[in-house]
Amino acid sequence: MQLGLSVSDSDVSSFTPLVVLELADDTKAEAITWLLNRIRDKQKNGGAELLVDQLLFPAQDGQKSNPNVFVVGSTLQRLLKGAEDVGLFKEFQDGIMRGFTYANRESFKDFYGDGEGFLSDAECQYIIKHELDTLRAKNEEHVPGYPKVKLYPGKSVVRRLQSKGVLVQYFPLHNKEDLKRLSFSWYKKIKLSFQPLDDIRHYFGEGLALYFGFLEYFTFALVPMALIGIPYYLFDWEDYDKYVLFAVFNLVWSTVFLEVWKRCSATFAYGWGTLSRKKAFEEPRAGFHGALGFNPITGREEPVYPSSKRQLRIYLVSVPFVLLCLYLSFYVMMVYFDMENWAISVYNENPNFGTGILLFVPSIIYAVVIEIMNLLYRYAAEFLTNWENHRLESSFQNHLVLKVLVSLATLLITSQILNQVMEAFLPYWLQRRRNKKVHKRMRRVMGDKELPLLEQVQLETEMNTYLGTFDDYLEQFLLFGYVSLFSCVYPLAAVLVVLNNITEVYSDAFKMCHVFKRPFSEPAANIGVWQLAFETMSIIAVVTNCALIGLSSQVKAYFPESETQMILIVVAIEHVLLAFKFILAFVIPDVPKDIQVKLAKLEFDSLEALKKRKILEAVET
Amino acid sequence: MQLGLSVSDSDVSSFTPLVVLELADDTKAEAITWLLNRIRDKQKNGGAELLVDQLLFPAQDGQKSNPNVFVVGSTLQRLLKGAEDVGLFKEFQDGIMRGFTYANRESFKDFYGDGEGFLSDAECQYIIKHELDTLRAKNEEHVPGYPKVKLYPGKSVVRRLQSKGVLVQYFPLHNKEDLKRLSFSWYKKIKLSFQPLDDIRHYFGEGLALYFGFLEYFTFALVPMALIGIPYYLFDWEDYDKYVLFAVFNLVWSTVFLEVWKRCSATFAYGWGTLSRKKAFEEPRAGFHGALGFNPITGREEPVYPSSKRQLRIYLVSVPFVLLCLYLSFYVMMVYFDMENWAISVYNENPNFGTGILLFVPSIIYAVVIEIMNLLYRYAAEFLTNWENHRLESSFQNHLVLKVLVSLATLLITSQILNQVMEAFLPYWLQRRRNKKVHKRMRRVMGDKELPLLEQVQLETEMNTYLGTFDDYLEQFLLFGYVSLFSCVYPLAAVLVVLNNITEVYSDAFKMCHVFKRPFSEPAANIGVWQLAFETMSIIAVVTNCALIGLSSQVKAYFPESETQMILIVVAIEHVLLAFKFILAFVIPDVPKDIQVKLAKLEFDSLEALKKRKILEAVET
Repeated sequence: MQLGLSVSDSDVSSFTPLVVLELADDTKAEAITWLLNRIRDKQKNGGAELLVDQLLFPAQDGQKSNPNVFVVGSTLQRLLKGAEDVGLFKEFQDGIMRGFTYANRESFKDFYGDGEGFLSDAECQYIIKHELDTLRAKNEEHVPGYPKVKLYPGKSVVRRLQSKGVLVQYFPLHNKEDLKRLSFSWYKKIKLSFQPLDDIRHYFGEGLALYFGFLEYFTFALVPMALIGIPYYLFDWEDYDKYVLFAVFNLVWSTVFLEVWKRCSATFAYGWGTLSRKKAFEEPRAGFHGALGFNPITGREEPVYPSSKRQLRIYLVSVPFVLLCLYLSFYVMMVYFDMENWAISVYNENPNFGTGILLFVPSIIYAVVIEIMNLLYRYAAEFLTNWENHRLESSFQNHLVLKVLVSLATLLITSQILNQVMEAFLPYWLQRRRNKKVHKRMRRVMGDKELPLLEQVQLETEMNTYLGTFDDYLEQFLLFGYVSLFSCVYPLAAVLVVLNNITEVYSDAFKMCHVFKRPFSEPAANIGVWQLAFETMSIIAVVTNCALIGLSSQVKAYFPESETQMILIVVAIEHVLLAFKFILAFVIPDVPKDIQVKLAKLEFDSLEALKKRKILEAVET
Repeated sequence: MQLGLSVSDSDVSSFTPLVVLELADDTKAEAITWLLNRIRDKQKNGGAELLVDQLLFPAQDGQKSNPNVFVVGSTLQRLLKGAEDVGLFKEFQDGIMRGFTYANRESFKDFYGDGEGFLSDAECQYIIKHELDTLRAKNEEHVPGYPKVKLYPGKSVVRRLQSKGVLVQYFPLHNKEDLKRLSFSWYKKIKLSFQPLDDIRHYFGEGLALYFGFLEYFTFALVPMALIGIPYYLFDWEDYDKYVLFAVFNLVWSTVFLEVWKRCSATFAYGWGTLSRKKAFEEPRAGFHGALGFNPITGREEPVYPSSKRQLRIYLVSVPFVLLCLYLSFYVMMVYFDMENWAISVYNENPNFGTGILLFVPSIIYAVVIEIMNLLYRYAAEFLTNWENHRLESSFQNHLVLKVLVSLATLLITSQILNQVMEAFLPYWLQRRRNKKVHKRMRRVMGDKELPLLEQVQLETEMNTYLGTFDDYLEQFLLFGYVSLFSCVYPLAAVLVVLNNITEVYSDAFKMCHVFKRPFSEPAANIGVWQLAFETMSIIAVVTNCALIGLSSQVKAYFPESETQMILIVVAIEHVLLAFKFILAFVIPDVPKDIQVKLAKLEFDSLEALKKRKILEAVET
């Protein structure tokens, strides 16, 4: 970030605006004054000590714009202190990632002068978001002007305002110059090159950079699969031995692929300083509530919520609910089968146009019901995960993703595999592609135009919000399932997925830069529960591949007299493959040796420093 | 440890003797002088700074005793400094385990006066062993008086002397008073009580205490299994549903049992200060060799050996060797079957006394060959593991145990399961019991007599060396296999194992106190690779239990027309059970919450202290 450089908008605000805050246009004046005061107030008084300015849009086309739009910025010093508060890790002089401290700022690598450019844009916005989120109520019983919007000590002010609709949204602002540079290195170059992950991380944060890293890694990893798949497809090798060979290759590939990705992501995350950040030390997410108390680890004042209560909520409410939903979706499917059988029997008795149409009715009803159920389930899952009151954003996300994936798994299981999956995913995928194209056309018109701050804010306020990497990972997850579950019977799958992903990279990149509001950076050390999901899928793949091989007519021809023997052999092979897979996963270390050494060195230095500190303390007392 | 209390032997040495050092009786005088000087020399000169005295035994019955027996002791101050060197963790004033520092000794809990009784006996002996082991050669090219016993900078002196036969043995001395107290609380009381784990740990160290903790835990955990097994056995419930129920119970039990043990062992290990000790910070084992360099983590001078070389040795030599041995043992078994078939055919052709005896010949040859192969394999495994050059004693042990277990697994697989196992293990087990009894009788005569130091040393020098917990864990492992693999068809197994273990506790306790030399304490945070072995066994148990259920005639009667369907259902159930098992293991956290919090707090404090330290350093420069 380069503070003070792009002050072409100095007519509007005296600082570089980083975050936009939009309040409802009928917000009471006293609430606004109170909020702005809290944001501007010194930290020692419980404020955020940030800079904030109002943006007044001129009335356009007779329509009055929302007057309550604010931009938030900060002094460089405040940001650096905030970096210490949120616990950023930066590279020290000696090449090791260490917790950043303001007092020691000059000993960190890449810190020059007053520290301009030391923090990335995404980091500055993350720090401001963190400071806003942790603006907690003191002794106010309610928001001034809104006696119904209750507060209690420790409650996040921003969160309460947001849930009551007073705060419409807050989002980080694009930096036009950086964005132009990023998009050039990202998707405007024609020449073949790797993703500029460091630039992406710099601009969008670690979460998104890891997604694009994964996308690229996955695509490259598929190339050998694709290369092997092509001759299988072309020469129609319908041969038992080759099938088995391909299945074994598939298995080894998917295991090694996922294990090596863990190492890659550890290397990325170490370099970005997120691997050493311990979850237990992080500040809680804004939605986390509980009585104000002290964190037993850091000793900081923050809401405290007993984890036993959370466990009870998860195991006594969420898990039974999810299981009930699974049962329900299974039941609905059974009803659908009954209905279809009934429709077919009616048609067979009296085949005419009316009964011919009747044939389609069960499927239509089923599709609509499933769609509605899915929608309801998604809402319920989000509500429940919120109610479980997870302390960290990452564990919130993990539990949410897990719930959604479980329901997806039943859809996969309850639909008769293979055919239905092909039928269900291909349209889904094509439709998503279409949606993307529409967005593309819509936004291309105003891609790179230079706009003054006021118009930029107005434009970005209206952009869609990027809802996180969930859908993107989900697509890759389905593609991975497609490759690993069925590549044995449809060897060209990997080729198609590679082709898809090559365009995917570009469309996702464009989407991030021009279609959506800029998202807040989410520090991430790995791809979270998706790693688990991919691993589970690769285990299921072993089972299905073995089953498919067992079903194939060539294999059956090998054991003409005894089906039992054939099944037992297939099951035995499956067990050996699974055992081999687990051993392979166990043997490959998750973190590369050099990173392990660096992490251990940090830990050792820390323990030594603590010993010395305790000695000093003992001497002083 | 209570220094200065038991100086009834002040006629022989002026300090409490802790460790006995026996050199060969023809050791050259100059080598002895050199070694004693190195042991007595100041640490800054590269010595161990310990106290050492020669013991001169009077000639008995005309036989001349070995004159080169020495006892090693230490001043209290030196031991406390040594405790810091080896990185002991002790409870701090605030209840958190912290690395012990001499300078800050008074802030630790249970540190009174000059620190007498602060370190346990086992810890003192461990420290002395550590100091002796890390006595490294400086510029000597060979041991004085032995031009052939080469040395190079960094080589462990003790290790070289031992491998060349100059140092016959060194072992810790029993403390008669403590031993009496321990044996009273351990196995001399008749009343039912838990194992005095803290006392055992105090006297024998963490490794053994964990073994006894595991033994006790395992025995208690078996009680519900035994209680369920009795009615199954008495009423002969040969019922399909009950079988399945019992198998499911068995599975849940073995999973929960192993997961809860992890939590228990973490709790023990935290309280004993071994959980926080990081392997990477520990000093290398005495057998570890390599060019003298600097540890990249601690910065200490020690032998350095690239882990890539070790990996190469493991994967290119050890793994192929183990696989070759497995193949060989399989091949030998095939030859045995051929021989037996041949003998039977000869007997059938011409049945008389000579050919009748011939029937037994293949089995006898096979048994002898297997026994020899096993012995050779054990030697080879130990040699290879040593050659792999592991840095830590614990990883050395883990690799050794793994190699031996793999060969054991083939024995289990290659022998036709069930019957042969029963036949093979019961005699093995009975034989081991007998051996123990013999030992017991032999040593009981001189159990608790009070002996002067000279005679005590002489007696203990001749005692057998305890070779580690391997055989003890192996026995428990086999018993666990016995219970979990076959409880379904032989429900009384758990009862028998409980009965065995109750006597096992007493005989093992007696063995440790009176049959063997006292072993050096081995700090352990868990039961190491045995946890993996038990978990693997419990997975195999699911497979075998399902197979046994599938084989049972009751189940076959359920599917009279279609064997295929039966197999498919059994396989499906097996997969569900395995999935359930993995989910259960995943859901139960390995470390209890409160210990997690304490560990995280230590880490947080450390990182904060490191930040402050770096600031101070920056200010100073």
